[in-house]
Amino acid sequence: MTDQPTAAICLIGDELLSGRTRDINVQTIARFLAPYGIPIKEVRIVSDEQADIVKAVNDLRAAYTYVFTTGGIGPTHDDITADAIAAAFDVSIDEHPEALAILSERYAAVDTEFTPARRRMARVPDGANLIANPVSGAPGFQTGNVFTLAGVPKIVEGMLGDIGHRLKTGKVVQSVTVRGANLREGDLAEGLAKLAAEFETLSLGSYPWFRTVQDHGVALVARGTDEVLLRSAADALEALIVTQGITPERLNGEAGGNGGPAQTGAQ
Amino acid sequence: MTDQPTAAICLIGDELLSGRTRDINVQTIARFLAPYGIPIKEVRIVSDEQADIVKAVNDLRAAYTYVFTTGGIGPTHDDITADAIAAAFDVSIDEHPEALAILSERYAAVDTEFTPARRRMARVPDGANLIANPVSGAPGFQTGNVFTLAGVPKIVEGMLGDIGHRLKTGKVVQSVTVRGANLREGDLAEGLAKLAAEFETLSLGSYPWFRTVQDHGVALVARGTDEVLLRSAADALEALIVTQGITPERLNGEAGGNGGPAQTGAQ
Repeated sequence: MTDQPTAAICLIGDELLSGRTRDINVQTIARFLAPYGIPIKEVRIVSDEQADIVKAVNDLRAAYTYVFTTGGIGPTHDDITADAIAAAFDVSIDEHPEALAILSERYAAVDTEFTPARRRMARVPDGANLIANPVSGAPGFQTGNVFTLAGVPKIVEGMLGDIGHRLKTGKVVQSVTVRGANLREGDLAEGLAKLAAEFETLSLGSYPWFRTVQDHGVALVARGTDEVLLRSAADALEALIVTQGITPERLNGEAGGNGGPAQTGAQ
Repeated sequence: MTDQPTAAICLIGDELLSGRTRDINVQTIARFLAPYGIPIKEVRIVSDEQADIVKAVNDLRAAYTYVFTTGGIGPTHDDITADAIAAAFDVSIDEHPEALAILSERYAAVDTEFTPARRRMARVPDGANLIANPVSGAPGFQTGNVFTLAGVPKIVEGMLGDIGHRLKTGKVVQSVTVRGANLREGDLAEGLAKLAAEFETLSLGSYPWFRTVQDHGVALVARGTDEVLLRSAADALEALIVTQGITPERLNGEAGGNGGPAQTGAQ
């Protein structure tokens, strides 16, 4: 591994593979890690099968600085992530006294029976450190370079609050977006390829949007760790759009992605 | 491989890993494949780097009956999927005469210059078959058991229309959802574990929802290929909810997932 830390995500759950649930946790974790200078390099989605989880986690933890898993740490029979992580690290798994205390106190406070099924949520791999869950109590845990989080998006957000202090930081990847309305990717592709070669330490991306015949265009995004170079690239991207007779619009960050217009590809 | 076909998806694009874009194509493809009896077993998201794409595609095409890739087949410099697929299959890549004809005609019709960049979209791995693109013209392609689609969701939907006739079908996985309002997962976990053991050829899942203090509960989903067994399981799931003094609600399919309430985990 180089000095620049990297991360991968392993989403666990049949409901993601069947299409029942559309994932949002990748976006949440990517946006959380961005200011730490830790880019996500790979994501895998696997089923609620121990062998699949073990293989994915072991592949990813060997290849990247950090791994985040989501899902499978609730009280039901299909919540097998803690056992799978223990198997991946070849350690045993037991009730964690602190986790047991948190859960027992929580259920007493809401006058709810602390059943054996709920008690399962106190089981973590030996040697793991707990990750606080300010939303629903039941903690996540860190095993080596692997952070095991819940699957429910609100709980993921909550647990991330107890993770930042554990991370080593890298150079922050910043980004700038230059939008050109009424253009198509093919209008800019050759000029963009030249700029990609010129700014070879940056990553230049092109993302068309097409909401209506009146509202379509291309968003050009430059990403990199060198702010001065990014500004130069943004100037050059604007100039490229001007050559097409269009006035560009510059925005900080990767603007125009989610929440942006539906894309149908104006090439 | 057994008689039951399987599929994997490889999503390609830095914008997915950076959090700029939230994927919807997994859900689209999963729902498209369900009636063919082809379950998605794994998903990977990789960057716009040839080595990453080649590795993921080669891992997945060896392990599953079909692989669907999305993204990276447009006209810009970061659209490298066709080259990566050719590298993965160790074949050369050239302009496909039919693809060239489709593109050339399309750009002539809209009075747009057919630039060298746009002409890149006619390049496909040797031996590949085209996949029609009714939305924006530029075709996808099939190489062995790998279907290479665009990344833009509307185009993915369009291209799937030219894929069904190429697939061998398996036993269709059906599902039934039984919802219990005002319950928490922990209330049902032990009974559910017993039913999971009893109906061992089905997959039983538990998905809490929590919109407000007044509107929360647990959705129990049974999935499997045996319709008679599924009905028995649904009866048993309803009976489990009744033991908690709640009247269950039964729905066909994996109802209550997307478009359903935001989940914050009532365990």
